[in-house]
Amino acid sequence: MTFALPQIAPLNEAMQAAARERQNNLTKPPGSLGRLEELSVQLAGILEQERPSVTRKAVIVMAGDHGVVAEGVSAYPAEVTPQMVMNFLYGGAAINALAGSAGARVVIVDMGVAADLPDHPQLVKRKVAYGTKNMAVGPAMTREQAEDALLAGIEVVSAEIENGLDLVAIGEMGIGNTTAATALTAVFTGLPIADLTGRGTGVDDAGLARKIQVIENALAVNKPDPNDAMDALMKVGGLEIAGLAGVVLGAAARRVPVVIDGFISSAAALVAAELAPAVKPYLIGSHESVEIGHQAILRRLGVRPLFNLDMRLGEGTGAALAFPIIEGAARVLDEMATFAEAGVAGG
Amino acid sequence: MTFALPQIAPLNEAMQAAARERQNNLTKPPGSLGRLEELSVQLAGILEQERPSVTRKAVIVMAGDHGVVAEGVSAYPAEVTPQMVMNFLYGGAAINALAGSAGARVVIVDMGVAADLPDHPQLVKRKVAYGTKNMAVGPAMTREQAEDALLAGIEVVSAEIENGLDLVAIGEMGIGNTTAATALTAVFTGLPIADLTGRGTGVDDAGLARKIQVIENALAVNKPDPNDAMDALMKVGGLEIAGLAGVVLGAAARRVPVVIDGFISSAAALVAAELAPAVKPYLIGSHESVEIGHQAILRRLGVRPLFNLDMRLGEGTGAALAFPIIEGAARVLDEMATFAEAGVAGG
Repeated sequence: MTFALPQIAPLNEAMQAAARERQNNLTKPPGSLGRLEELSVQLAGILEQERPSVTRKAVIVMAGDHGVVAEGVSAYPAEVTPQMVMNFLYGGAAINALAGSAGARVVIVDMGVAADLPDHPQLVKRKVAYGTKNMAVGPAMTREQAEDALLAGIEVVSAEIENGLDLVAIGEMGIGNTTAATALTAVFTGLPIADLTGRGTGVDDAGLARKIQVIENALAVNKPDPNDAMDALMKVGGLEIAGLAGVVLGAAARRVPVVIDGFISSAAALVAAELAPAVKPYLIGSHESVEIGHQAILRRLGVRPLFNLDMRLGEGTGAALAFPIIEGAARVLDEMATFAEAGVAGG
Repeated sequence: MTFALPQIAPLNEAMQAAARERQNNLTKPPGSLGRLEELSVQLAGILEQERPSVTRKAVIVMAGDHGVVAEGVSAYPAEVTPQMVMNFLYGGAAINALAGSAGARVVIVDMGVAADLPDHPQLVKRKVAYGTKNMAVGPAMTREQAEDALLAGIEVVSAEIENGLDLVAIGEMGIGNTTAATALTAVFTGLPIADLTGRGTGVDDAGLARKIQVIENALAVNKPDPNDAMDALMKVGGLEIAGLAGVVLGAAARRVPVVIDGFISSAAALVAAELAPAVKPYLIGSHESVEIGHQAILRRLGVRPLFNLDMRLGEGTGAALAFPIIEGAARVLDEMATFAEAGVAGG
């Protein structure tokens, strides 16, 4: 491959040990804050701080269209992709409300929307193509397009890191993108397509059967190589998925923790992890989606979600809801008194 | 009974219908925000607002001691109760960090700590007794004490509502209080004590066996009446548990939603619900605790927790972590654009 993957280091074990030691001396029974304690140790190892702070937060939402919608795989028409991008820019979408509530900025990136979008101060224009091609009849992208999209993701998150960033979430918008995410999941896990295919934005039973058939066709036509993540990405992926895989790679390379969202966002993280397994310890799960393929991705990534709120929207909404939990975990480690400091008797 | 329960009205169905209708027109597939949508509808029905706002938040943490610690049921000595109250007041405990992170105020109430506590602007002094009596040999409280504690809880939350309160969480501190919570749960659910008894702050196997035996003795000696919640509360409850049951009653009577925390906090909500079943729709679950009795309480209350983070600390810590999710649910309903407003095509 001509594309050079960034170098990703392991977590800092000394910082993790220091954080764990501090947790065991804080004024609570050891372990009684459960996963908050684990999160704080993970953050310490990623950010290389004994008492990490995660106040500067962003949700990077990437948008792209999918040629496969020609096969009738979605309940919504493709023009909803640019319409929702405009909704993001005007602050009317779920991710605007939830990121705002969590004190996080939202970065909207056009990776491959099949329409020209106006200039807007919050819109990052990295369009690689006007949508992917129809994977049911041939590769969704060229290899060069997939590499360009990955690189764009690395550059977008690098620019955000320059602006100040302790924690990043990845979200997406793209009518048809559960089809691409399902195809990628099937390739990397080897599980039956029917066991991984959900209703996306809400197809009926006939639509679901058609979607499964379309993905089967796409894999039969393209024969993506499960041992070559770039091959799978270009053949059955999406431009926003490739961009988000780049965000994961770029964030991990710069030691910024990445909060993954639902099915599509996690499929992007899976692509990144297949390209560079060293990204895995930089990932933080947020919710478990209604989309049935999500669990298979989380298992393969070794990521345990924090909650299941029966959500299936995407956009980074579940990840934004996890921000306060992750920030709370960091604040516990930083702000709590030790038994000695507080004059409290130990167990 | 001499104690007069406050009147509690059902939720406002018209406001719930209006909120549900609005949810179905927001720019997302209907239902795709899952439990956030349910939460927003519940808040609308409680607060009687089509687009409720829950920015003014408090955690009421009540502390009390338990005579039953004489039986060796806890891994920590009783003096930890007043020590931890001081830690709350100086801002060094987990609940301080997590409430601060959620933008919620913390109200500390001495309901029955077995020590004199200094004056402090954040400490509300409602001490009913210097701890309960040992339930293994007789009733933990007199009926008058239980009623005084309930009334104190109603008054404490009423004062907070006067200060401005859209959402309240209940938390507790009291060495020995998992024993009281387990006894109450056994009385109201009729389930075997051994299936409801956990390790609390961390007793070993011998301590766990002793704890089960102590609770069996307490029920045999006191014979609490499962159909008389006040009888059960006074015989095997706790002063902080009674106070928090009062908070639940007082909040529901004034139409303020109550976020319950873990095992003990939920046992207090159960006492309130046994006294006045109309409180149930005012309750919002937060986490599911490691304490094995917690699930039985949640089932009986008909409350589904939002997450399970392997926590078992109390203090209201799980409830404080739920605040941003609940606030996010309200903000989605209030801030998102409808399909018509945003010019987005429907499905």
